[in-house]
Amino acid sequence: MKSEFMNAALREARKGVRANDGGPFGAVVVKGSRIVSRAHNSVVKTNDPTAHAEILAIRKASCRLGRFNLSDCEIYTTSEPCPMCLAAIYWARISVVYFGCTRADAAKIGFDDEFFYRALEGRARKSEKRVRSIQLGRKGCLELFRAWAEKPDKVLY
Amino acid sequence: MKSEFMNAALREARKGVRANDGGPFGAVVVKGSRIVSRAHNSVVKTNDPTAHAEILAIRKASCRLGRFNLSDCEIYTTSEPCPMCLAAIYWARISVVYFGCTRADAAKIGFDDEFFYRALEGRARKSEKRVRSIQLGRKGCLELFRAWAEKPDKVLY
Repeated sequence: MKSEFMNAALREARKGVRANDGGPFGAVVVKGSRIVSRAHNSVVKTNDPTAHAEILAIRKASCRLGRFNLSDCEIYTTSEPCPMCLAAIYWARISVVYFGCTRADAAKIGFDDEFFYRALEGRARKSEKRVRSIQLGRKGCLELFRAWAEKPDKVLY
Repeated sequence: MKSEFMNAALREARKGVRANDGGPFGAVVVKGSRIVSRAHNSVVKTNDPTAHAEILAIRKASCRLGRFNLSDCEIYTTSEPCPMCLAAIYWARISVVYFGCTRADAAKIGFDDEFFYRALEGRARKSEKRVRSIQLGRKGCLELFRAWAEKPDKVLY
C-alpha cells in the first residue's frame, strides 16, 4: 500500500518533468486507504515560486475536504520536503511524511533545499546569500495582535 | 517610505481580521517605490493552511510580474515570517524582509511559528508533537532525479 502511494507520487513527478512544469517532484495526500490529492512541482509552468508538489497537494486536499486541518492525512513525496513544504505540513497538522530522495540528493541536481535549511537555522556559509531581515514598526503590529487576542469570534488554526 | 509600506501591510492585516479571514497578518511585496501586491492571512476563509499573507503576496506578485524570480523585490510583513513563508521568500529570491512583530509575539497570541522553527531545527521539546518522517522508495525517485539532471531543456529556479 505504502509503496503504491509513493509510486503515485512518482507518476505525478514524471508527468511534471515530461510537461516541463518544474522540478522532478511529486506528492500525494492520503487519508486512510484513499488518495485525496495529487500534484507535481509547477513553479515554471505557473511562474509561482511556491508551487511545490507538497504545497499544491495540501491546497488541493484542503479544498476537497473543506478544512484546513489534515491531521487524519499522511503525505507521500518523492523528495524530502524543503523547509517551506515541511512547515506547510506542520501547519496542515499532517502526522506522517513519507519521502524518497533526500535534501542532499536534491542539492546534487541543483536545488537549494539544503542551503535554505542551513539559512533558516542560522548556519549559512559566508559565501551564501542570506535574506536580510529588518524589524520595523512593531508597535502598530502589536496593537493589532492585542486586538485579535481579545476578539471573541476568532478561529485558531 | 518604508513605514508607509509597513502601514499598507498593517491595513491589509486589519482588513483580514475584520472579515475573519484568518490570523492578524498582512504583507505587501514592493518593487522600487511601487507596491506590486498586497495580501492578508486567509487560512480560515479559504480552508487553505498555506494561505499565509506572505505566500499569497508572493503568489500575486509573481503572477503580476510574470516570473518566479522576485530578486528585485522586497517584502513587508506585519510579523516575522514563519519557516514556510521565510523559505518561500528564499525560493522567490526576495532580498530583504521587513517585519513588525516577532515569532515570540506571535506565540503569545497562540500561533505555532516558534515551535515550527524549533521542530525544523531538531530542537522540539519531547512534549511537542513532531511530524514523523519516514524514507521510502528512494531508488525510483533517484532515477527520476538522474533523468532530470540529463534533460537538456530543464529550467532551474
